[in-house]
Amino acid sequence: MPAHRIAVIAGDGIGNEVMPEGLRVVEAAARRFNIDLQFTTMAWANCDYYLEHGQMMPSDWFAQLKDFDAIYFGAVGWPDKVPDHISLWGSLLKFRREFDEYVNLRPVRLMPGVPCPLANKKPGDIDFYVVRENTEGEYSSVGGRMFEGTERETVLQESVFTRKGVDRILKYAFELAQSRPKKHLTSATKSNGIAISMPYWDERVEAMGPSFPDVRWDKYHIDILAARFVLSPERFDVVVASNLFGDILSDLGPACTGTIAIAPSANINPERTFPSVFEPVHGSAPDIYGQNIANPIGMIWSGAMMLDFLGNGDANYTAAHDAIVRAIEQVLEHGPRTPDMGGSASTTDVGMAVAELL
Amino acid sequence: MPAHRIAVIAGDGIGNEVMPEGLRVVEAAARRFNIDLQFTTMAWANCDYYLEHGQMMPSDWFAQLKDFDAIYFGAVGWPDKVPDHISLWGSLLKFRREFDEYVNLRPVRLMPGVPCPLANKKPGDIDFYVVRENTEGEYSSVGGRMFEGTERETVLQESVFTRKGVDRILKYAFELAQSRPKKHLTSATKSNGIAISMPYWDERVEAMGPSFPDVRWDKYHIDILAARFVLSPERFDVVVASNLFGDILSDLGPACTGTIAIAPSANINPERTFPSVFEPVHGSAPDIYGQNIANPIGMIWSGAMMLDFLGNGDANYTAAHDAIVRAIEQVLEHGPRTPDMGGSASTTDVGMAVAELL
Ligand SMILES: CC(C)[C@H](C(=O)O)[C@@H](O)C(=O)O
Ligand SMILES: CC(C)[C@H](C(=O)O)[C@@H](O)C(=O)O
Repeated sequence: MPAHRIAVIAGDGIGNEVMPEGLRVVEAAARRFNIDLQFTTMAWANCDYYLEHGQMMPSDWFAQLKDFDAIYFGAVGWPDKVPDHISLWGSLLKFRREFDEYVNLRPVRLMPGVPCPLANKKPGDIDFYVVRENTEGEYSSVGGRMFEGTERETVLQESVFTRKGVDRILKYAFELAQSRPKKHLTSATKSNGIAISMPYWDERVEAMGPSFPDVRWDKYHIDILAARFVLSPERFDVVVASNLFGDILSDLGPACTGTIAIAPSANINPERTFPSVFEPVHGSAPDIYGQNIANPIGMIWSGAMMLDFLGNGDANYTAAHDAIVRAIEQVLEHGPRTPDMGGSASTTDVGMAVAELL
Repeated sequence: MPAHRIAVIAGDGIGNEVMPEGLRVVEAAARRFNIDLQFTTMAWANCDYYLEHGQMMPSDWFAQLKDFDAIYFGAVGWPDKVPDHISLWGSLLKFRREFDEYVNLRPVRLMPGVPCPLANKKPGDIDFYVVRENTEGEYSSVGGRMFEGTERETVLQESVFTRKGVDRILKYAFELAQSRPKKHLTSATKSNGIAISMPYWDERVEAMGPSFPDVRWDKYHIDILAARFVLSPERFDVVVASNLFGDILSDLGPACTGTIAIAPSANINPERTFPSVFEPVHGSAPDIYGQNIANPIGMIWSGAMMLDFLGNGDANYTAAHDAIVRAIEQVLEHGPRTPDMGGSASTTDVGMAVAELL
């Protein structure tokens, strides 16, 4: 295969600490599996850049990034410098939308060596995917205020669901379910309370079901679904959800498997018309930044997902992905561990340990 | 005190099985504490009524109910008969809105004898309140469809937040936090993704904080907050949330303490201009209806909250509330238990056991 061009954006806070370890491991895997990667680092898409330039990214960000094959992304946000809705809407959420990365894929897996907050669970018991719609729905900056600053102040916030947007994420999720042994899909809804958009979501699931006769599907309201993540996580296989519900479930799922610090995610444009973004689920964590104690596993695992995506089915790339995941499992089981996992190793120690196993 | 007039609405499914046990216990407590209660049963607000009349409730439901002091409510919904958004918007959600029950108060408490799904937690470790806004926000039937039935189909769903609506729930929550030993309030937000309404919510919290200098408050995005319910539930005291976020957190919280079957809730009109509604958090559970195995504890505990509310600070009513909660604790610890808690007792057995302890 030709070289893959990857843009590297560390972002804010611990994004800058975990990124070098992600790169270390991805490069080690690339060497071992003879994969040709070219990295280009972008110094923007962070809150310091915003303070200097009044925007999160240069005006030609789209042109600068659009021809990359992937973006390896740390974390954005530093609320004391820039309000979150400005920093995120000015970077990550722009990528998701303007590069049409409509699938946010998030594995939820109980790994060996990670103390599970749920009682009586062992590795293997929890192993599913959250497939999150990533471009529309509840994440919207459409709306506004009326009677501003008065007692009558009223704020309207629009959610927007389109047939195109809903159907393509459902199709991706049904296909993913179909490819797995259990062939089970769960749809997250809230059609009993949110009376316009969620009944529509349910209708589209209903309409697509018959095209996948071998997939068993069910639906749960988000409140009870969240409860079931805690009470019976082993029953899930693929969970498909709107932007907001997927966001909640893909933090809650990893929490049920011990920590969100190790959870990876992929923001995928399945048609590959634009680059996809690979980022850990955790954020920029300003409170622990600067001590080199952040857990780099989420960043590293996201790198593994990136290699798998770049291979597009090629067995060598899948092997590279699997090798990284196995190395992660070994380090989780035998250490070194960062303080959040009860150890005293640094971010660098953990990254080097994973890289060494490759 | 004069007699309290209570409307009884069992609703659908197991609402009909747990209600008699709730009444049994509330009546036993009323006898022991010399509280005068008058019950009036309404045979409407259920899906069979809808199938017969084309609406969930008679047209004069408001006039029929408005002078009651409280409504003791089972559960509504039977999706195979009537879609949830019709049955709920035609009953429970009407009460919440038209009786201006703007506070939905839901205790989350790890009780003795209840196996906790979280590892290494004991009774007392988890003990907080979810204060949920109950009349506006994301629960809205405003919006619609465009290009219906075509590939361009687009669905708009409005969320509506008002200063009046936001400020009054925040005030209730700050005051509740102020009345508790820890004096700690957590606000649920998602201002990094939901860009109009949630930054507004944050602003109002910020504006109110200084009026409660003795309350320590913080805020978390809903995704990470859900994760923290699993990872460190002991750190919460009072959690205030919008309608949707409160809905999710008040199922997730009880799940973290073992089961939503025992969780109670109060839909409160603090000004007492209209009746308040007391209902278990669980739903109508059509799948287990008809076997008399539903757990009545959520219904019974809601009855205790109702007595407390009716007393409006009177020590005798508080004592009645506390006596019921102690009786619940004893039955949870020593049985009898319904099948969902690992026992083989019936709904009736459990209700009678609690009543007997009074
Ligand atoms: C039945 C449903 C509309 C309701 C809600 O979402 O408010 C229920 O889940 C609750 O929490 O009382
Ligand atoms: C930072 C935030 C806007 C983002 C989201 O809500 O999508 C994050 O929580 C995530 O899950 O990737």
